[in-house]
Amino acid sequence: MINEISSVVTKLRERVPLVQAITNYVTINDCANILLAFGASPAMSEAYDESYEFAKISNALYLNVGTLTKEQETSMIMASISAKKSNISVVLDPVGCAGIQKKMDVVKRILELGRVDIIKGNGGEIKSLAGQDSKVRGVDSIDGEEGIEEAVKFLANEYKCVVVATGKRDFISDGKRMAIISNGVELLTKVTGAGCMLGALCAGTAGAEKDKFAAACTAVISMGIAGEKAYEEAKKPGSFKVKLMDAIYDINEETIKELAKIEFI
Amino acid sequence: MINEISSVVTKLRERVPLVQAITNYVTINDCANILLAFGASPAMSEAYDESYEFAKISNALYLNVGTLTKEQETSMIMASISAKKSNISVVLDPVGCAGIQKKMDVVKRILELGRVDIIKGNGGEIKSLAGQDSKVRGVDSIDGEEGIEEAVKFLANEYKCVVVATGKRDFISDGKRMAIISNGVELLTKVTGAGCMLGALCAGTAGAEKDKFAAACTAVISMGIAGEKAYEEAKKPGSFKVKLMDAIYDINEETIKELAKIEFI
Amino acid sequence: MINEISSVVTKLRERVPLVQAITNYVTINDCANILLAFGASPAMSEAYDESYEFAKISNALYLNVGTLTKEQETSMIMASISAKKSNISVVLDPVGCAGIQKKMDVVKRILELGRVDIIKGNGGEIKSLAGQDSKVRGVDSIDGEEGIEEAVKFLANEYKCVVVATGKRDFISDGKRMAIISNGVELLTKVTGAGCMLGALCAGTAGAEKDKFAAACTAVISMGIAGEKAYEEAKKPGSFKVKLMDAIYDINEETIKELAKIEFI
Repeated sequence: MINEISSVVTKLRERVPLVQAITNYVTINDCANILLAFGASPAMSEAYDESYEFAKISNALYLNVGTLTKEQETSMIMASISAKKSNISVVLDPVGCAGIQKKMDVVKRILELGRVDIIKGNGGEIKSLAGQDSKVRGVDSIDGEEGIEEAVKFLANEYKCVVVATGKRDFISDGKRMAIISNGVELLTKVTGAGCMLGALCAGTAGAEKDKFAAACTAVISMGIAGEKAYEEAKKPGSFKVKLMDAIYDINEETIKELAKIEFI
Repeated sequence: MINEISSVVTKLRERVPLVQAITNYVTINDCANILLAFGASPAMSEAYDESYEFAKISNALYLNVGTLTKEQETSMIMASISAKKSNISVVLDPVGCAGIQKKMDVVKRILELGRVDIIKGNGGEIKSLAGQDSKVRGVDSIDGEEGIEEAVKFLANEYKCVVVATGKRDFISDGKRMAIISNGVELLTKVTGAGCMLGALCAGTAGAEKDKFAAACTAVISMGIAGEKAYEEAKKPGSFKVKLMDAIYDINEETIKELAKIEFI
Repeated sequence: MINEISSVVTKLRERVPLVQAITNYVTINDCANILLAFGASPAMSEAYDESYEFAKISNALYLNVGTLTKEQETSMIMASISAKKSNISVVLDPVGCAGIQKKMDVVKRILELGRVDIIKGNGGEIKSLAGQDSKVRGVDSIDGEEGIEEAVKFLANEYKCVVVATGKRDFISDGKRMAIISNGVELLTKVTGAGCMLGALCAGTAGAEKDKFAAACTAVISMGIAGEKAYEEAKKPGSFKVKLMDAIYDINEETIKELAKIEFI
């Protein structure tokens, strides 16, 4: 499995997937930059009268509900319906759905009307989406790992997709397979957008690899290793973020095979 | 007083205040990052059908009118009314109100309908808000210090809040007390968002400290010292901004006590 | 000619042109920062009920259709009409017009109703705008240089403005003169917003120099040299972008005279 996972990086760099992103304005620049650094081609096309058409010509669609203006809300639903019709991979990032009912409503509407290949959220968001109680504070999860495996599996089966729950350890499942990844460093929580950037990377790998479980594992491991590499060079958040972009640019099959901390259960 | 001011940093890191920010898209990423680096928890929840609910669960609200879309305008008014009802601290950053009448109108509406604990603007904005003539160019103040003390005191009494006027020296008053702070470096004016980041920090400290005068002083001194520290390592704007984030991460009670350039008049 | 081009940098730093930018949310921070680093004064005033008034007091207007919300669309048209009336220089950046019909419609409307001094796009966008077939992928041009000279000249004559087509080599014409510039490095395509930042710089120089052909050449050469300088210090995209801002800050008449790779045909 690790060979399949690591090979996704090479596939991505050969295919240069075009990733349409409708994402929050806080980290939209970071998402574009990390996709470019990783080898994908980002396009933040989000006007409601563009998103349907643009989704058709993309290889993957990234939907992040972090700052959900009314226009973005309409655009996301139209783009995800378009992606369903044209068989385009979709990654859904339900930022803040655990604490804000309106975001939960939009997330469920997207899941109902459109197509979603990967749901990527923090532990609190994933548990909340699975109908479990969760502890969140604003957009951050302050929950432990209790119940997370069940939530991930439940959602994967419910929506027939791959589910990623991030935290100290990251849980990934397609309903049958389950991976636990332990790469990453604490400082990733001190720069805004680590979660969004991971979501964008999932869209990049999903646009290059048929097996979305492998695609999600590749993105999660790559982000984690990049964090570890960045931390070797910078212990403070400003410098760390710069080095994180450099490190993603350097990731390759070998670094993944050598440094991945993944177990399958 | 300096002990009270410096202790706010420790209080902030213990409380990790949740700061809701409705702010301009130019520097929204910088505001989130500097709040994280300082030890607060930012959440840029600004959709008009989220902002009222979200303000209730926050510890502070940061309102910045820099790029004021119609949806943001509605959201700001709703969030500030919600903050008033739920007793949440509010920082208002009247970016551009001196040069653009419409921004002035929205700023005054927020002051009338909602709750504001700290108004933080540049000299031109504060003078203009106080009804004085001011010299501005676009969103920048090109005014001197003449009349600034009076404007700060007048506004503080008029709106029963703390007022911060930034410039070569920064003036802070709650109507009774008046502090003048001389930390900072010229290069802070060559990166976009130094003012916005300071406003965000004010919301962070206001969410952790009851005495908003002390809270404002802590934010202003911290930003100034961080600028000085960053300038020791980087003399050009790209590198300087990276080091600024690193330096905010490093601020503590001791650095404030040692390096604060504050006088009370 | 190189003396005229290099002198624009000095004029810009003396005049500190106020540049109003209505631009995409992906790179709005980068555009503001590079304008500040170069010596201009950016103001991202884009609310539809501000843009008409604000254009009047600006020295130049930068319009970038990358993420075109409905409110931005209205604002751009109002600001460009205002600029026409008040004789303010306008730079139009038709991001994505080659792949998205709606963007092309808005771009043409701006050209019809308002005033445009410089059109700056990648090869695919410029050819597409000139009515030629073009090869694009999302917002990126994957076209060669074939037909580009003709497209640039045609558009310059058609709209009586300066046209810049970027690519491995950059083509600039005012309908009579034609310059080809070969500065820059490949890594500029691995950070988001290099094109937007160049567009912003064009607005900066256009706000300081009457001859818009010289102004456009200055911006293109400055961006290219800054890329080369940054690449000497950083080979990876995160660090490279930081050094790019530092390098723009350092550009002066001498570096342009020494390092410009420009030919006139």
